Parts: sequence; C-alpha cells; structure tokens
Amino acid sequence: MKTSDILNKTVKTLSDPDSYQALFHNHRDGDPFPSENELARIIEITRSILFPGYYGASQVNSVNMSFHMGIALEELGSKLSRQIAAGLCFSGDDATDCSKRGKELAWKFIEKLPSLRQILATDVRATYNGDPAAINMGEVICCYPDIKAITNYRIAHELLLLGVPIIPRMITEQAHSETGIDIHPGATIGSYFCIDHGTGVVIGATSIIGNNVKLYQGVTLGAKSFPLDENGNPIKGIARHPIIEDDVIIYSNSSILGRITIGKGAVIGGNIWITEDIPAGTKVLQKK
Amino acid sequence: MKTSDILNKTVKTLSDPDSYQALFHNHRDGDPFPSENELARIIEITRSILFPGYYGASQVNSVNMSFHMGIALEELGSKLSRQIAAGLCFSGDDATDCSKRGKELAWKFIEKLPSLRQILATDVRATYNGDPAAINMGEVICCYPDIKAITNYRIAHELLLLGVPIIPRMITEQAHSETGIDIHPGATIGSYFCIDHGTGVVIGATSIIGNNVKLYQGVTLGAKSFPLDENGNPIKGIARHPIIEDDVIIYSNSSILGRITIGKGAVIGGNIWITEDIPAGTKVLQKK
Amino acid sequence: MKTSDILNKTVKTLSDPDSYQALFHNHRDGDPFPSENELARIIEITRSILFPGYYGASQVNSVNMSFHMGIALEELGSKLSRQIAAGLCFSGDDATDCSKRGKELAWKFIEKLPSLRQILATDVRATYNGDPAAINMGEVICCYPDIKAITNYRIAHELLLLGVPIIPRMITEQAHSETGIDIHPGATIGSYFCIDHGTGVVIGATSIIGNNVKLYQGVTLGAKSFPLDENGNPIKGIARHPIIEDDVIIYSNSSILGRITIGKGAVIGGNIWITEDIPAGTKVLQKK
Amino acid sequence: MKTSDILNKTVKTLSDPDSYQALFHNHRDGDPFPSENELARIIEITRSILFPGYYGASQVNSVNMSFHMGIALEELGSKLSRQIAAGLCFSGDDATDCSKRGKELAWKFIEKLPSLRQILATDVRATYNGDPAAINMGEVICCYPDIKAITNYRIAHELLLLGVPIIPRMITEQAHSETGIDIHPGATIGSYFCIDHGTGVVIGATSIIGNNVKLYQGVTLGAKSFPLDENGNPIKGIARHPIIEDDVIIYSNSSILGRITIGKGAVIGGNIWITEDIPAGTKVLQKK
Amino acid sequence: MKTSDILNKTVKTLSDPDSYQALFHNHRDGDPFPSENELARIIEITRSILFPGYYGASQVNSVNMSFHMGIALEELGSKLSRQIAAGLCFSGDDATDCSKRGKELAWKFIEKLPSLRQILATDVRATYNGDPAAINMGEVICCYPDIKAITNYRIAHELLLLGVPIIPRMITEQAHSETGIDIHPGATIGSYFCIDHGTGVVIGATSIIGNNVKLYQGVTLGAKSFPLDENGNPIKGIARHPIIEDDVIIYSNSSILGRITIGKGAVIGGNIWITEDIPAGTKVLQKK
Amino acid sequence: MKTSDILNKTVKTLSDPDSYQALFHNHRDGDPFPSENELARIIEITRSILFPGYYGASQVNSVNMSFHMGIALEELGSKLSRQIAAGLCFSGDDATDCSKRGKELAWKFIEKLPSLRQILATDVRATYNGDPAAINMGEVICCYPDIKAITNYRIAHELLLLGVPIIPRMITEQAHSETGIDIHPGATIGSYFCIDHGTGVVIGATSIIGNNVKLYQGVTLGAKSFPLDENGNPIKGIARHPIIEDDVIIYSNSSILGRITIGKGAVIGGNIWITEDIPAGTKVLQKK
Repeated sequence: MKTSDILNKTVKTLSDPDSYQALFHNHRDGDPFPSENELARIIEITRSILFPGYYGASQVNSVNMSFHMGIALEELGSKLSRQIAAGLCFSGDDATDCSKRGKELAWKFIEKLPSLRQILATDVRATYNGDPAAINMGEVICCYPDIKAITNYRIAHELLLLGVPIIPRMITEQAHSETGIDIHPGATIGSYFCIDHGTGVVIGATSIIGNNVKLYQGVTLGAKSFPLDENGNPIKGIARHPIIEDDVIIYSNSSILGRITIGKGAVIGGNIWITEDIPAGTKVLQKK
Repeated sequence: MKTSDILNKTVKTLSDPDSYQALFHNHRDGDPFPSENELARIIEITRSILFPGYYGASQVNSVNMSFHMGIALEELGSKLSRQIAAGLCFSGDDATDCSKRGKELAWKFIEKLPSLRQILATDVRATYNGDPAAINMGEVICCYPDIKAITNYRIAHELLLLGVPIIPRMITEQAHSETGIDIHPGATIGSYFCIDHGTGVVIGATSIIGNNVKLYQGVTLGAKSFPLDENGNPIKGIARHPIIEDDVIIYSNSSILGRITIGKGAVIGGNIWITEDIPAGTKVLQKK
Repeated sequence: MKTSDILNKTVKTLSDPDSYQALFHNHRDGDPFPSENELARIIEITRSILFPGYYGASQVNSVNMSFHMGIALEELGSKLSRQIAAGLCFSGDDATDCSKRGKELAWKFIEKLPSLRQILATDVRATYNGDPAAINMGEVICCYPDIKAITNYRIAHELLLLGVPIIPRMITEQAHSETGIDIHPGATIGSYFCIDHGTGVVIGATSIIGNNVKLYQGVTLGAKSFPLDENGNPIKGIARHPIIEDDVIIYSNSSILGRITIGKGAVIGGNIWITEDIPAGTKVLQKK
Repeated sequence: MKTSDILNKTVKTLSDPDSYQALFHNHRDGDPFPSENELARIIEITRSILFPGYYGASQVNSVNMSFHMGIALEELGSKLSRQIAAGLCFSGDDATDCSKRGKELAWKFIEKLPSLRQILATDVRATYNGDPAAINMGEVICCYPDIKAITNYRIAHELLLLGVPIIPRMITEQAHSETGIDIHPGATIGSYFCIDHGTGVVIGATSIIGNNVKLYQGVTLGAKSFPLDENGNPIKGIARHPIIEDDVIIYSNSSILGRITIGKGAVIGGNIWITEDIPAGTKVLQKK
Repeated sequence: MKTSDILNKTVKTLSDPDSYQALFHNHRDGDPFPSENELARIIEITRSILFPGYYGASQVNSVNMSFHMGIALEELGSKLSRQIAAGLCFSGDDATDCSKRGKELAWKFIEKLPSLRQILATDVRATYNGDPAAINMGEVICCYPDIKAITNYRIAHELLLLGVPIIPRMITEQAHSETGIDIHPGATIGSYFCIDHGTGVVIGATSIIGNNVKLYQGVTLGAKSFPLDENGNPIKGIARHPIIEDDVIIYSNSSILGRITIGKGAVIGGNIWITEDIPAGTKVLQKK
Repeated sequence: MKTSDILNKTVKTLSDPDSYQALFHNHRDGDPFPSENELARIIEITRSILFPGYYGASQVNSVNMSFHMGIALEELGSKLSRQIAAGLCFSGDDATDCSKRGKELAWKFIEKLPSLRQILATDVRATYNGDPAAINMGEVICCYPDIKAITNYRIAHELLLLGVPIIPRMITEQAHSETGIDIHPGATIGSYFCIDHGTGVVIGATSIIGNNVKLYQGVTLGAKSFPLDENGNPIKGIARHPIIEDDVIIYSNSSILGRITIGKGAVIGGNIWITEDIPAGTKVLQKK
C-alpha cells in the first residue's frame, strides 16, 4: 500500500468516534486545559517566593525583596487562576464560572503562602538535622529531593483543600517524576517531615502523618485491600491508609499497609511488611 | 601549567585513537543519528494521536479531528522514518537502504496505531478500576505514570516486532527516566494491564504477561541467573524471565525471578522473593 | 478582601525578614549562583568529550576530532570555572578569590578527563558483559541509565576531591532524578562497576566499592545509625557506610548497612537486610 | 548616591501618575493587548495558506493539502480572533463584546482568503513580468520585497474594511520595517500591482490606485498640505492623496502629492515632484 | 581536492595572523563584548519603563506600577552595566575599571529616565498632531516608526553624553535597521520632534535641531564635504552638519548639507538640495 | 454561517488546484527547501569566520583560533551544502544530484573565503577612511550597515559565480531588509567599496563598479528601459545597468540609469538624474 493510502486510511479510522471513545477529551470552545508546562512554571515561581535567593532571580536582596515578591505573586496569581479554571472545566463545570472561581481560589491560595513557608522551614530543618552528610541549610534547599517533593505536596494539598480538581495530582506527579517520591495530595502531613534519599516512597491518599516523622527510600504507606461495592468496583473515598503518629522513623523499603496506626515514637526497621497496629515506642526489627 | 598548555595537551590526548577506542562512534558522512529529543517529540505526537484532546492541540473536536489526525500522522511519518533510519545505520546497515527502509517501517508502524489505541483503552480502564483514588478516566490519562510507561512500551514493542534496532530501547528508557518503571521493549504484555505507583518496577526482556494483570511499585520480573558460554560470557537471547498468567496481582517490592510461571489468578503478597512456579489461584503471603 | 489587597498584604508579610529567615540566600552583588541548567549543560559537554560521536556533534570523525575536542574543552573550562566559583561563593568564600580559584580548579579537572575516560570505558564493558539483553557497546553508552549515573558520579567525585563545594552533590542529584540511582559524590568506587536497571539504588557518602562490583535495582549501601554529639545532633564526617570488596554481586532490593565489609567475591541475594560483615566468597540467600 | 537609593528614588518618580500620564495604557483586567509577535505569526500562517509549499510546511502536496489548510485556518482563526479582540479593547470597546466580535470578524476575514489569493496571484505575475532579472514565479514569491509588502497590505486592508482598529496599521508597519515600503492600510489598490526594489515608497491613507500600476523605489504618493480646523489641528479623514489610474508607471524617487489624478497610461520619470493632474497617456520627464 | 583537505588547508590559511590582521578582535580573557541581543533587550526594557502598558507586561496598573518599575529598573541596571563595561573594554580601557565604571554610568543613565520620558511625551504629541491619519496617542506609541527611532536616539544620546563608547551607535543602528531612519547619537535634537514615514532620513553627527521641527521621509541633514588633514585623511570632530532652528518643516527627499542654518519657521519643499543658509520664515519650493 | 461551516468551505476552496495554481510549490518527497533561517545562520557563521572576535564566540584568541575556524567551517560546509542543494532542487534539478552537487559547490565556496576576507578588509578600510565620525575599524565592522550589506553581496556573488540558483538573491535580500541597501548578487564590484548611510541604495544586476568607489544613501544604479521581445515581454539577460569606473563618488539620491559609463574619478552631486555617459574626471552638480 502506498504511503498516501496508509495516511488516508489511518486518518479515517482514527477520526471515527468508535475508535477514540473515552480516550478523547472534547473541549468546549475556548476552555483552558491543564498544562504540564504551566504547572511546572507555577512551581518554579512558588519556589522563588518561598526560598528567595535560592530559586528565581539570584540578585534578590533586602532592598528589592518587595519588588520581587510583588511581581512573582502577580504572575503566580495570573497563571494559577488559569490552571485552576482549567481544572474546574476539566471536571465539567461551566466555563464562565470556572474563570471567576479560578481567580478566587488562586488568591485564596496565595494568602496561605506565608504559613506554607513556615511549615516548609521545619521540613528543611528536619532534613538538615537528619543527614550527617548535609553541610548546611542551603545545600538542603538546593539539592535534596525530599524538599522538592514535600514542597510540591504542600502546595498541592492546599489546593486540594480549596476544592481544586486534578491540578493537585498533576503537581505531585511532577515531583514523583523528578524525585521518585509519590505523595498523594490528599495525605495529611505534620511539620518537621523528612524523607531520606526518597526513591520509591509511596504515601497514599488517606494517610495521616504526625510531626517529626522520618521516612527512608522505598517506604510504602499503602492500602491493604479495598472493599468492593455490589458491582465489584472499589468503593471510593474510604480511609484505607495508615496513621503515623509523631516522632516515628521508618527505614528503607518497609511497607505499612491498611488503616492501622504506628504509635508515637515507634521505629520500624527496613524491608518489613506491617499490616497491624504498632504500639507507641515499639522498635520493630527485621527478622534474621 | 598554563591554561592554554593544559588545553593543548588535553586536546591531544583525547583526540588520540588509543584514548577513545570503543567509546567513539564514527559516523559515515551524513548518516542520521538517533536523537533523544526527536524521540521525545515522536512520543508526544503519538500521544496526541492516541488520546486526542488530552495531549496535543486542545481545541480538537469532531469537526476538525481528521485535519489534526492528518497533520499529526504526517509529522509522525516523517520524524519516525528518520529515527528508524538512524537506528538501522547505528547497527551498521547501509545508509541508502536505511533511509528507504526507515520510511517503510515507519508507515507499517502507523498502520498499527488504531489497534494500539484499542489495547491502551483497556489499560486505561484497568488503571481506573484499580485505584479507588482515581476520579475519572481523564485523570488517569493525564496523571498516571503507568499509562505513560505502558504507552511507551506498547509503541516500542511494535517497533521491535518490526525489526527496528536500538530505537525501542531508547523509547522505554525515556519512560523509565520519567516514571521509574523499566519495561523492556521485548516483553510481551496482554490487555487490561495496570501498574500502581510504579517506581522501581522492572519487567525483563523475555517476560510474558497475560491479560488483566496488576503490579505494584517495586515489583521485579527478572532473571535468576544466566548461563555462560564457553568463554564465560552470558549467552544472549535465552528465555530467562517469568510468565505471568491472566488475572494475577503482585504486590509491592516482590521479585519474581527466572523462567517460572505464576498461574492464572494467583496473588503474590509484598516484599516476597519467588524463584519457583506458583500454581493458578494460589495466594502467596509475606511470612511474619 | 480584594485581590489588590491580598497582593499588598502578602507581599508585605513575605518580604519581612521574620518570614524568610534561613530560607533566604542573600547574595553579594554580582556573585554567581550555582545553576541547574548550566550544570546540565556541563554534563552534556563532558559526555560529548568522553563519548565522541555518541553525544554532542554527530559528525565528529578522526580528521576533525581535535577541533571538536578543542572547542568542547574550552566551553567546559569557561562554564565549569563559573560554576565552581559559584559553589565557592555559596560556601561563603570571598568573591574575587572564588573567580580565580574556580578557573584553577576547572582546569585541574580538565586534566583528569583522559583518565576519567579510561575508567568509564571499564564501566561500559562491565555493563555490556553483565546484560544478556545488551546488543552492543553503543547501545550501552546511549541507553543504559547506569552509565549516565556512573558518569555523573565520576565527574562529581573528581570535583569533590578537588575541594569543590555543593556542585558535586548537584551533579549526582541530577543523575538521581534522571535514573533513580542515588550515588553520593563522596563514595569511592573502583573500575568495572555496573548497576543493572538501577532505580532505587542508594550509595552513601562514605561507601568504598572495589573493582568489578555489580549491583541490581533497589540496593542500598546505607548507614545503620549515626552517633550523636553531646547536643543530640548527628556527628558529621564519620565513616558509616559499607566497604564492598572486589567481585561482589548484590541482587535487587537488598540493604547493606553500617561500616561493615562484604568480602571479595561474595554474592548477596535479593531482598536481604545485612548489618554485619560477610566473609569473602560467601553466598547469602533469601530465606524462604 | 548609592545604587539602591537611585533605584528607590527613580521607581518612585516613574510610578507617579504625573510622570506617566498619556504614555501609560491602563488595561482592564484580563483584556488582551495587541502583540507584535502574534501578528507576525498571523502573517506567517496567512502566507502559508496563500502560497502553499513556498511558506509553511514544505512537504505539502495535493494529497495532504486539505489537512494543512484545515490546521492553518484553525490556528489563524484562533489567533486572529484574539488580536482583533485586542484591537477592539484597545479602542475602548467592552471586553466581553470584544471577544465575541473578534471571533466573528476573524472568520469573516477567513472567508475572504480565496479572493485575496486570486488578486495576489496577479501581483506576483506583474512583478515577474516587470523584472528582466526575475528567473521564475517561485523566486518572486520567495525573494521579492514587494510581494511581502503587498501581501501585508492586502490583509490589512481587508481587516480595515471589516472595521478592525489598530491591527491593520501594525500589520503594514511590520512590512514597512521589513521592506522599507510604507503602504497605509486605508489605500485602495487594484490588481496587477508591482513595486520594484521598493525602499522608501510611501502610499498614503486615501490613495486610490488602479490596475496594472508599477512604482519604483522612493516613490511617494503623499498629501500636499492638510486643512486645519478652527483650533489649528489637522482635520482628520479628508481625501488628500492622489488617484493613480490604470497602467501608470512612476519611476524612482518621484513624489505625487495632493488629491490629484495621474491619468490612465501616464509615465512619470524619476526624481520628479508633481502636485497637479497629469492627463492620460502623458509622459512626464525629468528636466535636464 | 577532498573535503577534508579543503577543510584543513582553509583552517590553516584563515588562522594565520597575516590573513586576519585588522579584522580580528583579540579579547582579553573574560572581557564582556557588546551584544546586539542584549542591547535589543535593553531597549525593550527601557520602552516598558517609559511607556508602561504599551510595552512590557500588559497587566501593569496603578496598584502594581512600582513593582514593575522596580524589577525593570533593576534588570536594566544590571544589563546596561555590563554593556557599558563591554563598550569601555572595546575601546581598550582596563577590564576591572570597565566593570566598576559600567555600573556607575548605568545608574547615572537610570537617573535620567524621568526626564527622558518627559521629552518623549512631547515627540509623541507632535507626531499625533502632525498626522491626520493618526487615530489616538496609543496608535502613535505602538505603530509609528519615528517614535521607535527617536526613543533609541534619545537613549543613545544620553549614553554618549555620559562618555559611553560604541554602544550609542549600536543602539541607533538598531533603529536604523528597524525603521530606515538613521540618526547619529551625536546629534542634538529639541522637543516636539517628529518624522513622518521616515524611511531614508539621515541626521548627521553634528546636526543641531531646535524644538517643534518636522521632517518627512528621505530628508538628509548631511555634510557637504570634509576638510582633509596633511595626510589626506578627513579631519575628525569638525562641525559639518546643519543647524535647524525651531518650527522648521522639511518635506520629503530634500537634502540640507553643510554647517548651514535653516532659520526659525522656514519651510523646505520636497526633492530640494540646499547648501546655503535659509533665512527664518522662508518657504523654499521645488522648481518646476 | 457557523464557524465550522466557514472552516470546511474555505478549506475546500483553498485546496482546489484551480485556486492555488502557480502560487503552490509542489515538493518532491524529501527535497530540501531554501530556508530563510538557515541562510541567516550561514551568514552569521561566515561573519564569525571573516571577522573573528567581532562576530561569533568572543573568546577566540591566537591559541584557539584554529579550533574555532575548524568548527565554523565544518558547520558552514554542512549547512551551505544543504541550502545549495535546496536551491538546485528549487530550480528543478534531480534530488540526488542536488545533494552531491550542493556539497561540491559549498566546499568550492569555502576555498574562496581567504580571498573574500582580503577584499572585505579593503571595504572596511574605505568605510573607515570615508567617515569622519568613525572612531576605529572595530566600530565600522560592528555597526556600519554598508559592511553588512557588502559582506552579504560578496558572499552571494561568489555563490552566483558558482552557478547556485536563488540562494544568492535570498542572501542579498536579507541584507536589503536589514540595511535598506539593495545590491543584486549579479553586480560586479571592485575593492575599497563604500556606501555611506545606505538606505535606498539600489545596484542593478548587470552593474559594473570599479575600485575605490563611494556611494551615498538613495543612489540608484538602474536600468533605463528594457527592450521587449516579439511577445512584449522584457528580454532577460541584457546588460542594462551602468559601469562606474574607479574612484567615482556619487552623492545622495542620484540615479544613474542605463548601460552608460561614469568615467574614472567623476563626482556626481546629489539628487541628480543621469542617463548618458559622463567623462572621466567630470564633476556633475545639482542645478539650482
């Protein structure tokens, strides 16, 4: 068959509604669509706001700080409004409402930035304290993948609390791709959180993590199984991931599964599979 | 030593054939060379064809669908022809043949796109059904790393079946880098395939996976050992990875090693190391 | 509250020194700052020098090799000088000294490139020999993530030996993000090193690895615990990671923890947790 | 004065409304603004539609022509809608109306493209016939500045007839910058129009040019003087530029000024200054 | 001759000092060099400062004006410092001095911006009043080439007064290329200056132009001849271009040559060649 | 009519061969097409070769000169080969021949670069000597538009002599757009050529210019009329532009028309129209 014939035949097949069905997203004219590139830029701007001098324009100083904050917040407000609107449209809301509501929610998010910065400062400190190889706080902010993943998570979690659809998940998936750390935006995580190395960490959607918790690479906070409805489909929205209380440490490649509780101050060794509650203060070690 | 002396001395050493040897690829004049950037663009175009409206131009609709398909297929045909030709040249084929053959194979691949889309639709559905946190099919297509990794794999596998060298492996390695999921293009995988979270998954070159199989993060389908030839080098091309039959689930961080069979409907718990056949329907649980 | 009021209020809060504190890096005027993009470009250039024809300009041949080496080394010298200077400034050195010292160290590094190329040639050979799926050396150089990660590590390690701060860590973290392989630049690694698949591998800062060692995905060479000083902070700089002697193989997802020694020729099975010395020649297998 | 003091003082002065006054354009929130870059892209797309194969994708052929036209028209419709809306907003119209009306007018313009192509075909032919140095029609389309300037003019003129503000002038000024040919979008120009070399040509807003007219470089069709109103300001909108009838040739650097008529078939020599009617068929020569 | 032989032979010839001589600029290591791209960006930034809302970020308003001015002035200070330093180095000054002096002069220039804006406001008004086709001031600022050329001239002239070498000429040549209007930065030009159409206008280095002067396209204010020194070379730095007093109008393509004076309120017709003083109030018309 | 109807109707009309006819260039599959961007890059590279340190990498010095020349010539060879091939294909030559012949001619051109540099050195000197405002040779090379236009002309002329179609004209038209100086690549021009200011200069295809000639802005060397063949079409290829002998000066806006000779050392004043031979040594002045 000639190339032009293959072209025409394949165009025809692929343009047939029977072929694309659920794999096609039919936009209403002019609706914005969530954009990976725009979200990546939003994260960049937010990092430049939260960690001035480490990200964004390097010449920021105490004299010109407010100019830089002003311009960055304005750009963030504009881009985030549009992405939130895109998320709302994606979920089927009316386009005019999306645009108006996108703007409202973006500026509600912006109001949270000072407190976001406060809690991230505790994560940076915990990471620095937890690694004998860390030279200074600056190295932690610039190089450590957990700070990148936790920053994206904390941004995404705020957006999820504001009711923004899909965008939060896209933001945490970008960190997942960059760091190998997969934190669902729905998880609840306290202050002074730190993850060492991080590749392979999974934190499920209904996990609850207290303050001063430390995880190592490969740790899973997962679901054990999920109840099915009468049609055999998983029931959505049930609490199915663990509760990790304050001051817990979980070593590499261990899995904590199901709605169980790891009590305050417990230490879980590496390569361990846990599906039941662990009392506070317990040390669970690898069997030999 | 002065900078200019270091420069001249180092240029001389590094330009000496004794230094570069096997680390140097000597192109014939004008041969194309496989390009990471071009392959990334090829994947983008293919995603826009398979999932219209989710990837590529967002304003696609039922009226203009055929224009978009036409242009995308044409660009794909042109770029893929060149990359396949580059792969053939890389393997030492004659340059004129490479170019002609590259074009033929690219259009053979394009003919497969409708069936590729069909099987990917089953993977999307399996992923959606398998995650209580998934809100809708659109979220799965846009955010879930397994869909990205499986799409790249299915593209690469078709190219490998057509006899294209090196390009398939580059395509799956791009997904490996993006998602942490390492599927060898040589593996054979059925429909309704799904991988949850995915970081650390390894699926070896001679693996065979049935329909409706689900893997979790960190699962390895690997080789146990490989026989050496008389010179002590591994013998290439021997079937050495597992066969996973239909409806199997394998939980996180488990390793299935060697040419063994995991029987239909078996469930393998997490953190488990398996090197022998598992009968159909068996549940293998983590020892405590 | 109106958008403009939120803007002004948030600018004010975020520009207040009480808010930014340790999360702000106050540059001295004109100091260079380490740049992710420039480092990525430095790695690209260095790959084009080490593996001519595989990376960089594809038309390089034995006639024009010295032109390409000359231009690439010159660009490397210029960009690396500036990034090293940025690293020195970041650590608080005087800016004029940084610039002068950056240039000296960059050219000292350049002098090491021929020997860097030599040792990388052994890693390529080990990777090729170790994988029955590898078709040829070219495929290994172009596609295999361990070659990318080991190249970055070997570059970073040389820079660390020259006393360059922060830049080495940024270079290995780029490979970590790209490949999921996390090698600390402080580790010492012999020739003929190879890592199969690689996602999730962690090699700690004080690890010592001999020649001809092979690791699989998910292997951790980590610390067991770290002694605290009188204030309860980890004591920095203590040797706390394992010594892996020549000819050792460690299978997937195993963890080797603490300043222990895995003796020459030992084989460690998968999913195993080791915290004590293993004698030379021992095979440690997964318990059933 | 210190740099930071100059910065703060100058920011304050320049942000004072007394300073910026009429030089400041105060946007309503979210209004689009005319964009030089977008207009340049619009011209590119339109050229690719009018002259397929010469501009835009080079691989266009009779098989895929309709795909290329479809995509190009769609992109043109979308971008032009937005720029027309920006022009309407610029002139003070209500933003919601602008957007709706921008779309209507853009698609009205698109309906004119087939006739625009027809008349441009006559300009190309006239230019080819008029230059002994022209090798073929393709060279004329690709290289001759008058074709660029006349294309922009004909596009701009159609937009002006549709009532679009400011955008038409921006489009002809882009051609003015590129070619040195300044045609006001308000001028009326017949078919088979050609300008040789072109630098310095000026064609005023109320000029009327018949069919088969040829101008050389440096020709001005200008106003002689303009009547003032009672306040001493020029009265806008009066016909004040010449009428050039069919088959006229005007040689280089001549100026035709005022609402006069150059009769059918007249030939005006170079470097001549004309402010009165010239009868049909006259030859006006440079005095010696 | 083989390609590789031509390559080697030509490299050798072109690298021979006898070949390059005065066409080679030998940089001292690390000296900045004047950059066309950076200067174009400097003009863009300056336009965004002088005409906020018309150039630069379109969302500027009275609330965020000072943020935008702050960031723009800071970027301008930084980029202009470097380009001025490059200009000083180009002229052979010592590199360390260049850098320090570049910064001083850049900030001296920045202090002049408010008065630059004031005088440009008069040019905009004069252009608007002088063209019956102009719809509003915004159209003049966005579209009229004379405003672009005069803005570049006024910027360049300030830099020249500050003693900056080469950079001013590069800035006016950029406007020359964009608009066909060639104003030497050394000329002195009063307020309410306007040039209609503009292509081909030349204003020489020692010209002096009063207030409220209007020129049309193709007007030359040039030198008549220049005295030679004893070696037959032109003597540099002699006043050799005309003085144009207030309220003069010069119509298209006329040339005013030599150090003569065109008296206040004179009107010079088009296509005229003038080499002697013209008394105030005279009307000089084209001979028939 | 609905937007989608307009779209479909217009696509149909514009895709009809009756509509596009001579305005469509039907490529043979895979033929290269002349590219404005590639030609602009070719000029950039050539400038960096001819004027090292002024254009291209600023850090070139006598140590690394040959590396820079080597890489630049190689890139030039590759890009120019492709553009020449595109020109040959454009003119209808066979595609395989085009590619081979493109390479041959590109390297023939490269052999001429040393002599091109020699003659351009005389033009730079003539321009420097001819302008009292010129500070040094560097300023002339970097800023003066005539050097840009003459460089493009000399490159284009060499390519035309080698028989390359269309590409030479595209190269001189780029300079025409940038500088307003329109030199046909077919003209013959001696050494020590200089054009002051330059906007509006036209030099026709069969002009012959001796050594040490100086032109001012707006000068035309044009055709007076062109004989028609029996069909009323201009006869192509006849010598129809002037011969300008050595040491001639022509002042601004004068036109020299027809195959006449301006004798050695003649001086032509400004705004003059000449259609007959001028004897050597004559001064022709503007009549009053």
